[in-house]
Amino acid sequence: TINPQRLWDALMETAKYGGTPKGGIKRLTVSDEDKKVRDWFKAQCEALGCKVSIDSVGNMFAVRPGKNNTLQPIAMGSHLDTQPTGGKFDGVLGVLGALEAMRSIVDLGYETNAPLMIVNWTNEEGSRFAPAMLCSGVYAGVFTEDYAYSRADRDGITLGEELTRIGYKGTEKVGSHKFQAMFELHIEQGPILEAEEKVIGVVTGVQGMRWYEVTVKGQSAHTGATPMLLRKNALVGAARMIEAINQIGLDHLPGVASVGLIENQPNSRNVVPGEVFFTVDLRHPDETVLDKMEKAYQEVIPKIAKELKLEVEEKRIWKSPAVKFAADLIDCVRHGADQAGFPTRDMASGAGHDAAYIARVAPTTMIFVPCLGGLSHNEEESTTFDECGAGAQVLLNAVLEYDRR
Amino acid sequence: TINPQRLWDALMETAKYGGTPKGGIKRLTVSDEDKKVRDWFKAQCEALGCKVSIDSVGNMFAVRPGKNNTLQPIAMGSHLDTQPTGGKFDGVLGVLGALEAMRSIVDLGYETNAPLMIVNWTNEEGSRFAPAMLCSGVYAGVFTEDYAYSRADRDGITLGEELTRIGYKGTEKVGSHKFQAMFELHIEQGPILEAEEKVIGVVTGVQGMRWYEVTVKGQSAHTGATPMLLRKNALVGAARMIEAINQIGLDHLPGVASVGLIENQPNSRNVVPGEVFFTVDLRHPDETVLDKMEKAYQEVIPKIAKELKLEVEEKRIWKSPAVKFAADLIDCVRHGADQAGFPTRDMASGAGHDAAYIARVAPTTMIFVPCLGGLSHNEEESTTFDECGAGAQVLLNAVLEYDRR
Ligand SMILES: NC(=O)NCCC(=O)O
Ligand SMILES: NC(=O)NCCC(=O)O
Repeated sequence: TINPQRLWDALMETAKYGGTPKGGIKRLTVSDEDKKVRDWFKAQCEALGCKVSIDSVGNMFAVRPGKNNTLQPIAMGSHLDTQPTGGKFDGVLGVLGALEAMRSIVDLGYETNAPLMIVNWTNEEGSRFAPAMLCSGVYAGVFTEDYAYSRADRDGITLGEELTRIGYKGTEKVGSHKFQAMFELHIEQGPILEAEEKVIGVVTGVQGMRWYEVTVKGQSAHTGATPMLLRKNALVGAARMIEAINQIGLDHLPGVASVGLIENQPNSRNVVPGEVFFTVDLRHPDETVLDKMEKAYQEVIPKIAKELKLEVEEKRIWKSPAVKFAADLIDCVRHGADQAGFPTRDMASGAGHDAAYIARVAPTTMIFVPCLGGLSHNEEESTTFDECGAGAQVLLNAVLEYDRR
Repeated sequence: TINPQRLWDALMETAKYGGTPKGGIKRLTVSDEDKKVRDWFKAQCEALGCKVSIDSVGNMFAVRPGKNNTLQPIAMGSHLDTQPTGGKFDGVLGVLGALEAMRSIVDLGYETNAPLMIVNWTNEEGSRFAPAMLCSGVYAGVFTEDYAYSRADRDGITLGEELTRIGYKGTEKVGSHKFQAMFELHIEQGPILEAEEKVIGVVTGVQGMRWYEVTVKGQSAHTGATPMLLRKNALVGAARMIEAINQIGLDHLPGVASVGLIENQPNSRNVVPGEVFFTVDLRHPDETVLDKMEKAYQEVIPKIAKELKLEVEEKRIWKSPAVKFAADLIDCVRHGADQAGFPTRDMASGAGHDAAYIARVAPTTMIFVPCLGGLSHNEEESTTFDECGAGAQVLLNAVLEYDRR
C-alpha cells in the first residue's frame, strides 16, 4: 500500500513552486516555476534509482527496470504545469501519485515484470501556449515538433525559446521512448463523484473538443463625440457573440461552450473599442453533436458581425476528437478500486488530458478522484488527503494488476 | 495672419514623440514620451521670450507680457497627452495652434493689452489615469491635488510618482496662476462639421458625462468539466451588461453609452471567467436625461448579475455636469471666424475638454475644426493642413478681439 502522508507532503512541497497567496498555483508551462518543479521531480526520481530522460519538447520520463527489460515500460503520469490561477491538484496529483506508487514499490523491494515509468508531459494546460495537451500530442504524432516549438504565448514568446531558456529541450527524439500502456490519475474537475459520493471514477473516455480564435474588427472612436448609430463597436460585437456562444452550450447539453480569453483594443475608457480578440472552446461527448455546435457557432459569428457593421476573422485552431479508453486497462482500474474497497462510477472526462492523445499510440486509461464542488482551474480547487491517497492506491493496484496480466 | 506651414511642421515634428507605425501617437500622460514633448514645448516657448512655469500637478503655463501687466493674461491651450492609439491632432492642435498664434504675434511685434498665455493641461485624456480633465479639474477646484496624485494606472503606478519621475511636478501652487479668459482650439472629434461643410465650430458648451467602474464576480472553473447550468460565468455577465449599456445609449439618443475598457480574470482559454472589471461612460447634453440613463444603468447591472448568479460591485467614479460657455468669448470666436471668412456652425461638444472645467473659474470657450469622418481616438484621425491653419487663425483673431474689447 502507498503512503498517503508522503504523497500529501510531496503535493504540499511542490505547491510552493508558483504558490499563490490564495493557496493555488501559478506555474505556467516552461516558466521559471515550471523549471523548479521539474528539477525537483528529476531529483526525486533519481534518488529512487530511476533513470530520467527528457525528449526534445521537454517531456520527462523516469524509468525503473523490471525483471524483463525487453518488455516496454508501463507508464503512469500526467503534467506539472498549471493554469494562471490553478489549484494544487490538477495534473500534479497524477505525477506525484505516480511518484508515490513508484516509491511504495521501491520501499517494498517489489520487482515488476515490465519496467515502470513516470511521465511528466509538457504543456498540458494549453493556457500559456494553445492548444492543450500539446507535447503529449507531439508524442502521439498529432503535432510536429516544429509546430510545438512555434506556439507563442500572448507576449509572442515561443515554447521553443522557453524550453531552451529553462534547459528542458532534451536530446531524446519525441516518441522514441515507447511504453506498452499508460495510466493517468487525475482529479475529476467536475461535480459527479462528489454528488454521488463515489471515491473513484473509472474513466471510459474523453469528450471531443474544439478551440477557435475570433478577431472582431470595428473602428476605434471617441465615446463622447461618436453618435451611437455611427459606431462600429467591436466590443459590443464580441459581447453579443459571447452571449450567443454561451447559448450554444445551453442548447446542446451536456455539451459546453465557453469564451475564456478576451483582449480588447485599445482598451481605454473613452474609446469605442476598435478590435477584440477572443477564444472559443466547444465540447461534447458526441462528435456529431459537436459538429452541430460548430455549425451554429460558425453561423452566428458572421451574422452578428453583419448586424453591427463589423468585420470578423475566425479560425479553428484545435480539434481533439472524442476518445474511448482501452477496455483491458479500464478493467485493471476497476479491479484495483475493488481490491481497495472504493466505490466507483464509470464516467467520461469533460476535461482534456494527455491520456486522450496517448490513447492513439498505446492502450491508455485514467483514474479520477473527487474534487470539492467539482471546482478546478481555480485556486480553491480541493481534493482531500484521503481522496489523494485513494487515487494513488488505485493507480498502484491497477498498474500492478496490468503488470501481472 | 498665422503661418499654417509652421503650424503643420510643429504638428508633424511633435508627432514623433510617441509616434506609432500606423501614423498615430501613443503619448500617455506623464510617460517618457510626454516628458519629451513637454521639454520641446518649453524650449519653443522660451525661445519666443515667454516665461514658462509649471504647477505642482504638471500644468504648464507660458506667458508673454502685454502692455498692461496688471491685467490677468488671456489664455489659449489644450493638452499634449494622447490615447494609447491616438491621433496627431486631439489636444495637440490646441497647444500648437496657440503656439503658432503666439509666434505670429511675436513676428509682428504686436503688443497686446493683456499678457498672453499658452497652457498645456496634464492628463486631459483620462486614459492612463481616470478621470479625464484631471489637472484642469484640480486648477478649477473640482479635485484636490492629493486626489490627482493618488490616481493610479492599471499597473498601480500613480500620477504623483510619475510626475516626480519625469521631473514635471512643478513648484507653483495649482490655481495660483490666474488668467482672465481661456480659448481652446480643438478638433471636433465628431462628424457634424464635415457633414455640413463648415470650417469652424463655434462651441457653446459641453455635454454632461459620468464614468463608472464595474466588477463582476463569478467563479472560475474548468470549461470542459463544468456543466453549463452550474457555472457562474463573469464574462457572460459582463457581455450581457455591455449589450444592455449599449442599448441605454440607443434608447436615449443623442446620448451615448459605452464600455471602453475590460479586463477578464484569469483570461485563459479553458477557464470559465471568474472575474471581470469594466468601465462605463454615459453622456448626454441634458443632465435630466443623463439622470435617467444612470438610473437605467444602475437598475440593469444588478438585474443581470442576479439572472446569472453573479456578484457585482459598481461605483460612479466621475461626474462632469453639462457646461455652457461664456457668451462674450463665443462672440469673439464668431467674430474671428467671420473676419477670416470661414463658415461656422454653433455646436455642443460631445467630448470632454479642459475648457469644461476651466469654465468654472474663468470665462471660457472653444473653437472646433473638422476631422475626417468625425474620427478621433483613432490613429487615423485626420485634420487637413488648411483646417488646422483655419483653426489657429480663428484662435488668434478671437484672442486679439477679446484683448481689444
Ligand atoms: N485537465 C485539464 O485541466 N486539462 C486542460 C485541457 C482542457 O481540458 O482544456
Ligand atoms: N477631447 C478628448 O478627447 N477628451 C477626452 C475626454 C473625454 O471626452 O473622454
